[in-house]
Amino acid sequence: MSKKIQVNWQPDRKSKVSLSDQIVSYIKSKIYKGDWLVGDLLPSQRALSQTLGVNRSTIVDAFSELNALGIIESKTGKGTLIANSSWSMLLSKTPDWQNYISGSIHKSNLPTIQSINKYEFEEDIIRLSTGEIASDLMPHDAISSVLMKLAELKEPYNYLEPLGLEELRIQLSNYLKRYHLNFKPSEILIVSGSLQALQLISVSLLGENSTVLVEENSYVKSLKVFEYEKMNMKSVPTDSNGPIPWLIDEKELKSNALLYTIPTFHNPTGRLMSTSRRLELLDWCKHHHLPIIEDDAYRELYFDSMPPVPIKSYDDSGNVLYLGSISKSLAPGLRIGWIVGPESIIERLGDIKMQSDYGASSISQWMLTYLIKDGHYEKHLEVLRKELKDRCHHLNDLLIKHFSNIASWEVPEGGFYIWLKLNDHISTDILFDLALKEKLLINPGHIYAFKKHTYIRLSYCYASKDQLSDGIKKLADIIKKL
Amino acid sequence: MSKKIQVNWQPDRKSKVSLSDQIVSYIKSKIYKGDWLVGDLLPSQRALSQTLGVNRSTIVDAFSELNALGIIESKTGKGTLIANSSWSMLLSKTPDWQNYISGSIHKSNLPTIQSINKYEFEEDIIRLSTGEIASDLMPHDAISSVLMKLAELKEPYNYLEPLGLEELRIQLSNYLKRYHLNFKPSEILIVSGSLQALQLISVSLLGENSTVLVEENSYVKSLKVFEYEKMNMKSVPTDSNGPIPWLIDEKELKSNALLYTIPTFHNPTGRLMSTSRRLELLDWCKHHHLPIIEDDAYRELYFDSMPPVPIKSYDDSGNVLYLGSISKSLAPGLRIGWIVGPESIIERLGDIKMQSDYGASSISQWMLTYLIKDGHYEKHLEVLRKELKDRCHHLNDLLIKHFSNIASWEVPEGGFYIWLKLNDHISTDILFDLALKEKLLINPGHIYAFKKHTYIRLSYCYASKDQLSDGIKKLADIIKKL
Repeated sequence: MSKKIQVNWQPDRKSKVSLSDQIVSYIKSKIYKGDWLVGDLLPSQRALSQTLGVNRSTIVDAFSELNALGIIESKTGKGTLIANSSWSMLLSKTPDWQNYISGSIHKSNLPTIQSINKYEFEEDIIRLSTGEIASDLMPHDAISSVLMKLAELKEPYNYLEPLGLEELRIQLSNYLKRYHLNFKPSEILIVSGSLQALQLISVSLLGENSTVLVEENSYVKSLKVFEYEKMNMKSVPTDSNGPIPWLIDEKELKSNALLYTIPTFHNPTGRLMSTSRRLELLDWCKHHHLPIIEDDAYRELYFDSMPPVPIKSYDDSGNVLYLGSISKSLAPGLRIGWIVGPESIIERLGDIKMQSDYGASSISQWMLTYLIKDGHYEKHLEVLRKELKDRCHHLNDLLIKHFSNIASWEVPEGGFYIWLKLNDHISTDILFDLALKEKLLINPGHIYAFKKHTYIRLSYCYASKDQLSDGIKKLADIIKKL
Repeated sequence: MSKKIQVNWQPDRKSKVSLSDQIVSYIKSKIYKGDWLVGDLLPSQRALSQTLGVNRSTIVDAFSELNALGIIESKTGKGTLIANSSWSMLLSKTPDWQNYISGSIHKSNLPTIQSINKYEFEEDIIRLSTGEIASDLMPHDAISSVLMKLAELKEPYNYLEPLGLEELRIQLSNYLKRYHLNFKPSEILIVSGSLQALQLISVSLLGENSTVLVEENSYVKSLKVFEYEKMNMKSVPTDSNGPIPWLIDEKELKSNALLYTIPTFHNPTGRLMSTSRRLELLDWCKHHHLPIIEDDAYRELYFDSMPPVPIKSYDDSGNVLYLGSISKSLAPGLRIGWIVGPESIIERLGDIKMQSDYGASSISQWMLTYLIKDGHYEKHLEVLRKELKDRCHHLNDLLIKHFSNIASWEVPEGGFYIWLKLNDHISTDILFDLALKEKLLINPGHIYAFKKHTYIRLSYCYASKDQLSDGIKKLADIIKKL
């Protein structure tokens, strides 16, 4: 039933906003907040002019605007009613933002990714697929010790040069030698994580009709980073070693093309590329003038033996852009990664980086400088590798217990992920929703895929062992019911 | 004179790279490094096969490839010579990177900006135009104290939620109330500095044929951030108060358009927009459904009285995207800024931010949280304002002394800049080069302009008083000689 509206509010006579505009705003805000509903009856113009202590003409002006917007309506014999409470009416003076969004350059994230980004921060959720280490796996004592050091050193926190903090690039140049990567600080660009590296490569080197070749399941398929203009992503034939170069269709290479690969502890499959495949792939790409982006974010996370050295270490012709990061191996919150490549390309990318955000956080860069220099990073990695191996085995044990009859998988030699293939043709989207109801968050494998399939990316790096035990059992129960 | 080359090197028989390829690489690298020059004579194939201990056929293969690349040449009766040492020859197996760059989406920085970005890091340079505070104006004790606090607290440094650290958004939501900005944490997006804010707005809200209206001289004219696709930037009629709304050509508003302004201590002119202009501009833009980007990076840097409250504070209809930052007022190295706007737009921008770099450095975000929360920021600003006022007066005194007859300028009430107009028609590009020879770095005004003119942006925030005294005198001398 409609009610008679009581007004107990006064306009601000000192405001620069006109009284009439204030009244319009007030009425809109009451409707917007839901305090007044459609059909409710406003006081008469005369009554309102008395209550608010303003001229009758001010009320007439305000009502006339609200009327024009379709928000109120005068009915003979009844008075003035609230006629509409829709957003679009209330905000009719707002720019048509939706139109701006739909006409813009950058695509929205996949709805599933948006949901994951959101639900990760809900209470009590068990994150069975998250691609980052839990806080208790981070080297808090080392980080504290570096923070104390920085508190003493009082470094200037000015803008940095285009390639990033020189001290950090020197440290990285030395550090990377252990992986047979012999590059000068001038061949290294500091970025705010590997994702930004991809973003920079996309807008700095690719253009209309560029093709990005990727594995059949690939991390970048879950992103929109290679979807500017008329770029396109294509999957290449892939086996357990990664892309099979001799099966790549040469017709795909016409416009400016790139090949993106994660040869070491691949995301999402966890697989490791052999040395011979690395050499074959590089050789094929060199002969086809096809640059490789080698994303090596998971390199440090081997359980037992060091993985084959990077493709980049065999690259004598500037064919490979090498991406490194501490987001997986130390702490994503620092937002630091790096690109190694030919100087001309590094300069180009540094120029665009300057145009994107004037460089990465200098406090983060100083922290990483000392974490490496003072040996904290190496010590931390030793601990982390053991922990991840232990958690991986724990997850594998749980899968053997609960998933033996309903799925198949391989046990990785490092990294974060077990790539679980469900035996039955279950919709992993439905599974996502059902799991969420049980407070389980999973990454359906199809977000990484070019074809539909029934894989799930599981991870053992974030959820605690207890959470894994609980979550994996629950997940198996949901699947069995389907 | 050409010399006979001596080889004292051996291929690596254990390497996976073929012996022939190793020989090709070795010869290329010697030429590339400049050890061997064009015209130099290689040993005979027979001699080389003995020295390297490889089959003659391996040498034949290697020479044949080098020959095909045009790097070596066999002359009858003379032997085999180095024929070419150019990069392109040596790297003929490299992807044609230049082609990638020229076909890509993002434009390079202006050459002048690239030079400035580079020369800022040269020794002994006096930076007369730099837009950031010198390290000695930063609150090092407060920063140290916050670093110590973080060392104790051991916060997790995981990925953060799409809008950024909630604790920081709560602090900002409170802090901004002093400027009549009453917005919830959910209406605030943390970004890696204001430049990134512009970048996000550009790719998230603008598209083909979008028009960005700006003042006649504008910071964003020096950037390429609004030059994707067929976007265009247009200047609107401007007076000492900023854009004159009633003179804006309505025809410019057809496609999705935005108006970008720095109403408070404008970059590069230093000017301050009056309250009435703020209201007039907002009113006009509201009626034309034209969103405003209000860049308020310099707000805190007033010398005496607080500047008029932001345009955003009068915005009752989601018409204004408000950009704040600590890059000018605290330390650019933290790389933290924020956008205040309608929730739907903040969410859209947050989604694209996640796709750009997964959020700003969480250590930087925690630092700023405590710098504000513990009152450090406010105390620091009181000191900084006094210092900047003092330096501004110092620069003004120097200009009166050395530039009275050759230039005109206004003294700003805050911010960083004096916008100096040279009386004579001197090329500020030539001046830039001549100044650089004297180790003076200046920003020619035309990088901010749509028309040629003879302005220079000077700043008093970076160079020390002594450097200013020295630099301004030298600059005047150079101009007088021209």
